[in-house]
Amino acid sequence: MKTRDDCLAADRQDPLAHLKSQFALPQGVLYLDGNSLGAQPVAALARAQEVVSQEWGQGLIRSWNTAGWFDLPARLGAKLAPLLGVPGDDVVVTDSTSLNLFKVLAAALRIQDSQAPERRVIVSERDNFPTVLYMIEGMIDFLKQGYSLRLVDESLPLQEALGDDVAVLLLSHVNYRSGAMYDMAAVSAMAHAQGALVIWDLAHAAGAVPLALQADGADFAVGCTYKYLNGGPGSPAFLWVAGQHQNAFWQPLSGWWSHAQPFAMSDRYAPAQGIRRYLCGTQPITSLAMVECGLDVALQADMAEVRRKSLAMSDLFIELVRTRCAAHPLTLITPEDHAARGSHVSLRHPQGYAVMQALIARGLIGDYREPEVLRFGLTPLYLGYADVWDAVEILRDVLDTRAWDRPAFLARAQVT
Amino acid sequence: MKTRDDCLAADRQDPLAHLKSQFALPQGVLYLDGNSLGAQPVAALARAQEVVSQEWGQGLIRSWNTAGWFDLPARLGAKLAPLLGVPGDDVVVTDSTSLNLFKVLAAALRIQDSQAPERRVIVSERDNFPTVLYMIEGMIDFLKQGYSLRLVDESLPLQEALGDDVAVLLLSHVNYRSGAMYDMAAVSAMAHAQGALVIWDLAHAAGAVPLALQADGADFAVGCTYKYLNGGPGSPAFLWVAGQHQNAFWQPLSGWWSHAQPFAMSDRYAPAQGIRRYLCGTQPITSLAMVECGLDVALQADMAEVRRKSLAMSDLFIELVRTRCAAHPLTLITPEDHAARGSHVSLRHPQGYAVMQALIARGLIGDYREPEVLRFGLTPLYLGYADVWDAVEILRDVLDTRAWDRPAFLARAQVT
Repeated sequence: MKTRDDCLAADRQDPLAHLKSQFALPQGVLYLDGNSLGAQPVAALARAQEVVSQEWGQGLIRSWNTAGWFDLPARLGAKLAPLLGVPGDDVVVTDSTSLNLFKVLAAALRIQDSQAPERRVIVSERDNFPTVLYMIEGMIDFLKQGYSLRLVDESLPLQEALGDDVAVLLLSHVNYRSGAMYDMAAVSAMAHAQGALVIWDLAHAAGAVPLALQADGADFAVGCTYKYLNGGPGSPAFLWVAGQHQNAFWQPLSGWWSHAQPFAMSDRYAPAQGIRRYLCGTQPITSLAMVECGLDVALQADMAEVRRKSLAMSDLFIELVRTRCAAHPLTLITPEDHAARGSHVSLRHPQGYAVMQALIARGLIGDYREPEVLRFGLTPLYLGYADVWDAVEILRDVLDTRAWDRPAFLARAQVT
Repeated sequence: MKTRDDCLAADRQDPLAHLKSQFALPQGVLYLDGNSLGAQPVAALARAQEVVSQEWGQGLIRSWNTAGWFDLPARLGAKLAPLLGVPGDDVVVTDSTSLNLFKVLAAALRIQDSQAPERRVIVSERDNFPTVLYMIEGMIDFLKQGYSLRLVDESLPLQEALGDDVAVLLLSHVNYRSGAMYDMAAVSAMAHAQGALVIWDLAHAAGAVPLALQADGADFAVGCTYKYLNGGPGSPAFLWVAGQHQNAFWQPLSGWWSHAQPFAMSDRYAPAQGIRRYLCGTQPITSLAMVECGLDVALQADMAEVRRKSLAMSDLFIELVRTRCAAHPLTLITPEDHAARGSHVSLRHPQGYAVMQALIARGLIGDYREPEVLRFGLTPLYLGYADVWDAVEILRDVLDTRAWDRPAFLARAQVT
């Protein structure tokens, strides 16, 4: 695509183009940050109104049964399951990604402890999303059972980090900063060959790339519903456990919703069979219910088509930046190899922070990540090729005119 | 009050009566279950619409700053603080009650471990809300550090359960089943005299009875916003830590929101100072934001007046049941002593389950708790004395006519 008209022509041929109308996007904004917070499905507003005024306001406590609140984590999990490539009974939508990580890490460590107690190392990577590392640190510190964290980085490749002391490998499938994607099947097989269990954080993968967790040999996964799945701000996260591990262990956040008989009010804990034992306490129903609206849009799309368009858009973005912003010190940090790329593209610029503020002021919303990284999410459900063209034009103009070189953009405020 | 007209006269004198119009209650329903799920403030619908269509839909990722999402847990905590009798900086609204219990129990155990490592017993009571016990069990099992749970019951009074092996006493201020209330100051002092730290679960107390956590010497507290605080189904819970304990410990659910510099994306965890270190991951913003609507109604009422009306309503309820339902095998299990009573009244009946189903079919919504307990929540913000009269009349009629004696009511479905 050499011109904007080429892009418009491609948009007219796009089999996903009709889905954009199912999102309520603001006028005058190019939103390339769906990898941080997805757009609002039109249906979400009516769903929130229904939960608040009908299910809560009119139904009151009866809605636990009549509106299906009790079944919601499992019902939404079953709806999400095809996007993860797993059976419907093996997923729940609940709590936050950080908390779900705690649960599955606890389970993985306990399984290893019963079979290979000498394995006391958790391997992750220095460039993982920080909260993943913080949750691991928190657990290690609290347990005092001799665990330690080993971080893969430039000086320690993954292959060397694995060994007979490793209990668990915990990686993000798509890196939050660079957009680099692991080969899940190959990495899972490598970890298993070394005796480790594998946990995947799918925050930047679910809804963005085709997933086949079960076929690819993953053991546990968690992820986020408010990015590519468009569930709403802070909407509850998901958690998947491979069938063979589900009943191996009590996870320690053992609240009432994970009990075998939650309404018997027993004074002794007994875990439910299956994935329900990974629930904990009462869920925020309004936020949880809206997850379904995002899933309903995603399930209308063929995931192979989503992936094809995502790669075509990011190829186009990279090519346009290369040709039209050639005069500027931008460094692509996202892999060009399709097999190693998620659905966002990141560029480093020496004044990355100020550049992103200037882009946002022009209506192009991407986001900034330390250090000096401009991050652009390419979301096939509501963006098209002409949007990519327009985004690069705004970037080019901001760089050509040094629009970023203003005190208001250079001063660092709190960044989210 | 001997007649319904007496009740109506009392309602006309009620200084809280005007607050009922701020709730959207269904027609034809007498709702005596606000202790399980509070009623919907009228304002909550507009707030949900604003979050979904404006803050999410139009503001998108910018709303983390522009709509104040990042500050929401602390801002709502500061608003709630006067109802708990604590400084505004010491409370956050976040996660579920079960998860918050895990955090404060972890903190309390760690503080004791550093000062009195021989203390390895957690004291609670057999009749505590089950999820409290399940969370304690989960932690003990996971830690493998020699902790055990000792339960107070008929055979073991609280005073005997405390001793020099006890690290933590964890009690519910108001019992979920019986409505019995502890003297917080006396129990906290007794525990401290024995060297234990005290955690209070305020699920059935916050918004229902006046609280003075700081003056009463509590160390930690957690509680629920969706009962007497009318925050919405499953709305995030709250957590309070006494100032002197806040920075003593890293709680293990150490997600990004608890980090000293959450946007620096450091690969090492460093806890924030103060109560923010008790946060974990991203919160469900729509459900969280609506908590404010319930708080705004509660803050219009004088808590002493709320308490006075609550006791007057429960006195009336008990008196009317005693006089008008005398022929039936109802046993009051709620203390009659005002100082030992929360804001709900519970009655045992040999066919309690079926009786509650029959009451609900007549539009009187209370709830059922094992074993054979009929529970009635008396919420001064939206109930009046004539409502209490009408409720007892429905109960009397259901019992006099044996309306409960039908297969549909006797068959046990899943109870919430």
